[in-house]
Amino acid sequence: MQQISLGSLNYEFNRFQEPCVRISSGETIRVESEDALSGQIRKADDLRDKSTVPFSNPLTGPIFIKQAEPGDTLSIKIETIESRDGQCATYTGNPKQLCQWLGTDVPSGAHVCPIRDGFVYWSDEIKIPYQPMLGCIGTTPAYGMPSTMPAGPHGGNMDVREVTEGNTLYLPGFVSGALLYLGDAHAAMGQGELSATGLEMAAQTTLTIELIKQKMISGPRIESSDELITVSSGTPMERATADAFAQLILWMEADYGWNRWRAYDLLTHVAEISMGYYEGGGLAVKIAKEYVAHPS
Amino acid sequence: MQQISLGSLNYEFNRFQEPCVRISSGETIRVESEDALSGQIRKADDLRDKSTVPFSNPLTGPIFIKQAEPGDTLSIKIETIESRDGQCATYTGNPKQLCQWLGTDVPSGAHVCPIRDGFVYWSDEIKIPYQPMLGCIGTTPAYGMPSTMPAGPHGGNMDVREVTEGNTLYLPGFVSGALLYLGDAHAAMGQGELSATGLEMAAQTTLTIELIKQKMISGPRIESSDELITVSSGTPMERATADAFAQLILWMEADYGWNRWRAYDLLTHVAEISMGYYEGGGLAVKIAKEYVAHPS
Amino acid sequence: MQQISLGSLNYEFNRFQEPCVRISSGETIRVESEDALSGQIRKADDLRDKSTVPFSNPLTGPIFIKQAEPGDTLSIKIETIESRDGQCATYTGNPKQLCQWLGTDVPSGAHVCPIRDGFVYWSDEIKIPYQPMLGCIGTTPAYGMPSTMPAGPHGGNMDVREVTEGNTLYLPGFVSGALLYLGDAHAAMGQGELSATGLEMAAQTTLTIELIKQKMISGPRIESSDELITVSSGTPMERATADAFAQLILWMEADYGWNRWRAYDLLTHVAEISMGYYEGGGLAVKIAKEYVAHPS
Amino acid sequence: MQQISLGSLNYEFNRFQEPCVRISSGETIRVESEDALSGQIRKADDLRDKSTVPFSNPLTGPIFIKQAEPGDTLSIKIETIESRDGQCATYTGNPKQLCQWLGTDVPSGAHVCPIRDGFVYWSDEIKIPYQPMLGCIGTTPAYGMPSTMPAGPHGGNMDVREVTEGNTLYLPGFVSGALLYLGDAHAAMGQGELSATGLEMAAQTTLTIELIKQKMISGPRIESSDELITVSSGTPMERATADAFAQLILWMEADYGWNRWRAYDLLTHVAEISMGYYEGGGLAVKIAKEYVAHPS
Repeated sequence: MQQISLGSLNYEFNRFQEPCVRISSGETIRVESEDALSGQIRKADDLRDKSTVPFSNPLTGPIFIKQAEPGDTLSIKIETIESRDGQCATYTGNPKQLCQWLGTDVPSGAHVCPIRDGFVYWSDEIKIPYQPMLGCIGTTPAYGMPSTMPAGPHGGNMDVREVTEGNTLYLPGFVSGALLYLGDAHAAMGQGELSATGLEMAAQTTLTIELIKQKMISGPRIESSDELITVSSGTPMERATADAFAQLILWMEADYGWNRWRAYDLLTHVAEISMGYYEGGGLAVKIAKEYVAHPS
Repeated sequence: MQQISLGSLNYEFNRFQEPCVRISSGETIRVESEDALSGQIRKADDLRDKSTVPFSNPLTGPIFIKQAEPGDTLSIKIETIESRDGQCATYTGNPKQLCQWLGTDVPSGAHVCPIRDGFVYWSDEIKIPYQPMLGCIGTTPAYGMPSTMPAGPHGGNMDVREVTEGNTLYLPGFVSGALLYLGDAHAAMGQGELSATGLEMAAQTTLTIELIKQKMISGPRIESSDELITVSSGTPMERATADAFAQLILWMEADYGWNRWRAYDLLTHVAEISMGYYEGGGLAVKIAKEYVAHPS
Repeated sequence: MQQISLGSLNYEFNRFQEPCVRISSGETIRVESEDALSGQIRKADDLRDKSTVPFSNPLTGPIFIKQAEPGDTLSIKIETIESRDGQCATYTGNPKQLCQWLGTDVPSGAHVCPIRDGFVYWSDEIKIPYQPMLGCIGTTPAYGMPSTMPAGPHGGNMDVREVTEGNTLYLPGFVSGALLYLGDAHAAMGQGELSATGLEMAAQTTLTIELIKQKMISGPRIESSDELITVSSGTPMERATADAFAQLILWMEADYGWNRWRAYDLLTHVAEISMGYYEGGGLAVKIAKEYVAHPS
Repeated sequence: MQQISLGSLNYEFNRFQEPCVRISSGETIRVESEDALSGQIRKADDLRDKSTVPFSNPLTGPIFIKQAEPGDTLSIKIETIESRDGQCATYTGNPKQLCQWLGTDVPSGAHVCPIRDGFVYWSDEIKIPYQPMLGCIGTTPAYGMPSTMPAGPHGGNMDVREVTEGNTLYLPGFVSGALLYLGDAHAAMGQGELSATGLEMAAQTTLTIELIKQKMISGPRIESSDELITVSSGTPMERATADAFAQLILWMEADYGWNRWRAYDLLTHVAEISMGYYEGGGLAVKIAKEYVAHPS
């Protein structure tokens, strides 16, 4: 298996950047990534110094998938997401809209949490199950080079928990080679990602990437062992929710033979929703495959 | 146990209405309610006729809780929610924002689904687990008599799945007797309640209501066996999410000894979110009690 | 001309309330109203005491219009809006979402401003042109008794500047007599009504009310000497904007012979927008009558 | 005066692109730009062919301002905006959220409108005053290369009418030379830019650009002869409105000696708002300089 070591820290989905590796469809690779804080917080007293590193979410890449052309889709099976140093870091950020209720006297200072035995040790008494996910992963658009902050049709900083071990992420290819980037692993993440800073983790991720030729999708899709999932992004969240539902319905119609209005009705009763960062991250809508298997 | 039979169908939280019953704190009662379609859809060919019944979500009530005064809180333990006639009904409504992607040629016509053996039979092949909830339940505000369509600090049409068997809902009391109304049971509900019409069910609900004197809460709270939950409502959803998080943090601070900024940090990593109707229903934010038990 | 003196202070659009007056279509009346602060701030040292008056926007009414039935429309020509005591009051409220940028150390304390010679004297150096408007005016819904805080299809707390002298407001009638309430005059108002507390003024308003039988409108409309205006409300503002545009297009189609898609195109180039309170007040979309006169 | 002829059509704010010209602070230049439809619609029968030109809003640039460094501000006085061929074009696009009320049967087909004698001739009977503005103008970010579709702190596709003749636009400089791009002139534009396609015009714009060294601003500002204006963007619009107000208050505080809470109060009574494209364009908040001159 090919190992992609941590190279430059990249803060954009940059179609001009030289690929760090070229792989063939079907290959499994292991990719190292830095944490979202660019590794500035490793010990309890470390500070996030934005004067030296103003950006967040450094990614590893781009990974060039041979024979990928605009109009193809990438299938990205996430095999494992492992911590590289047995710990993760977070800090309490700007309360933004919550200052109306909580005030603004938020303490500064970072917080390093050990990871062991399947748990993140947030405090002496509180351990959080290790449920790793990738906050930021995406293909590279043909124009409008997004930074690693927003989410969009290319994926990007979706911050949804479903980009996790065992699931397959589908992303549209916009340029030759598709140019995949990834990073911003979290050791665990709450829905809504309230403070915008998760349990940020230097990681190595094992992925199997396959190319689906001449299949266009309008945005990110995820398949777990038992669910179909679409991800939309942007605000207001009412729009993202409507869009994610519409894309899921169109997927059920195109690939599974559903009547769109029957799918619309069924989703009303059985959909699940997973929220990424609540001010513009991904919004995932899900349906169990068990239902999808019986088109109506 | 006192049985509250179906009486008038009420479409408002009306502080002028004569109570249908007066109960004491600690009583368990069984309450019949009509379905959200006012019972107009009972057979396959029935139509929802808005000329005769323009409103939705008829409620049973008001239930007067003796000694309840403004500034008290109601604790409402939902014991069971049972179907009264072994079926539920739905229909495909206006696609609203989704028409941009799906068009507007939605078929009319209702759809009756049998309930048996713990499942709702949505089609010959698709059965949905019976997971009943109350879409609309609330106390009566002291002014501004809400209809049964919006949600708010009084509860109302929250449409969140957590108002379900085994959970305890807390609602602020605004008037003498608190004047509780309830109805709009769903046999199951997807997150986001896409079409706004769930699996609407005539129900009987068994509840135990206790009065907590001189405890003010700012809006609905729910306690399950293992979670604390706050519910906010209104749009844009970014605001409702921020509000629900803030209320949960303030609850952890006031009742469990948490530092608000530590709670803010922890929720970033462990919160769960449950969405009601995506255009203005309730938005529930949750944390496991296991975490809350260890204030930091 | 009939004079309606200040009577009870009403904080709801209450269909059960006894009319304060009954008038015939075509009558001109003069209506006294209290300021939005319920008259608590009259001198520099006065305080807004919410323990005695928890509500805002007291209205005068309801005015019963004889022969008005559900499905009719009221035409309300606003002749003049005059200060009753030559002054207005405001105070600096909660910065809400702005605390993210400004902090929360907002000073308390009210501020009384004299009105004379066509100006409001906000400070020694700053005088603001007197441009009075009614913040809150509406008919009474058939169900769901709104308080005087939200705006909606019945009008209510729209807070748009176009409800002003010389303009005609159209409101749908929902109950017999229509039951009009009005108040919350502002001596002037900025768009967005940032702090939610305007230059609140005790007023007497002269109106001419006419009944348009069997004409249904979906929400508030305004006609000035040279513009047609629709008002929508609610959040997110993207939805209110879309709704107000759609209602204006449908008005142009129904009453002026426009093709809806031509109107849609034209409005893209010539519409004006006026924003009420930015977190849920009215959003007004306008087109010059000069354009409307030439349907396409 | 230096003339910048139409060169390549640029659809990104691209910090890697070779400048089309280098100018000194204080220079006045004349810049040709293509229309937002990339010139595909010149005659009545022309079609917008997205297969050959998938993008919108081609810009001219980048213009390198000598000695501009990150942390400086550009002052861009817009002298004149002239049509290059005496016409403009539009077409009726997707009704998006309005399909809920209007349906989706929008006709295709473009529409060319002559410009003469100070008017745009939209139809035989309807002429719209020629009030040209630049829809898209911005400096180039240091990372995250935006396309010409969104607006942001760099300016971009703000689509606000205040970017017009006689006004001065201030933009933050992020990279050496600032790298200014501009285009997407409209012959006139309605607030909200309903259909997202204005009266798109090939233009030549005369600008005087001055460099303000070591002055950082957080986003676009505009100064007219009588107003100070801040522009924010993004959705939900409630957030953009709050942000634009906050930035205007901070400007008044920093440059004009205002107490922020006094400014907050005053803006409540005298602010004006101008809306760009209603789903994410710029939102401009304005105050008359006459008021600002008397700090309080």
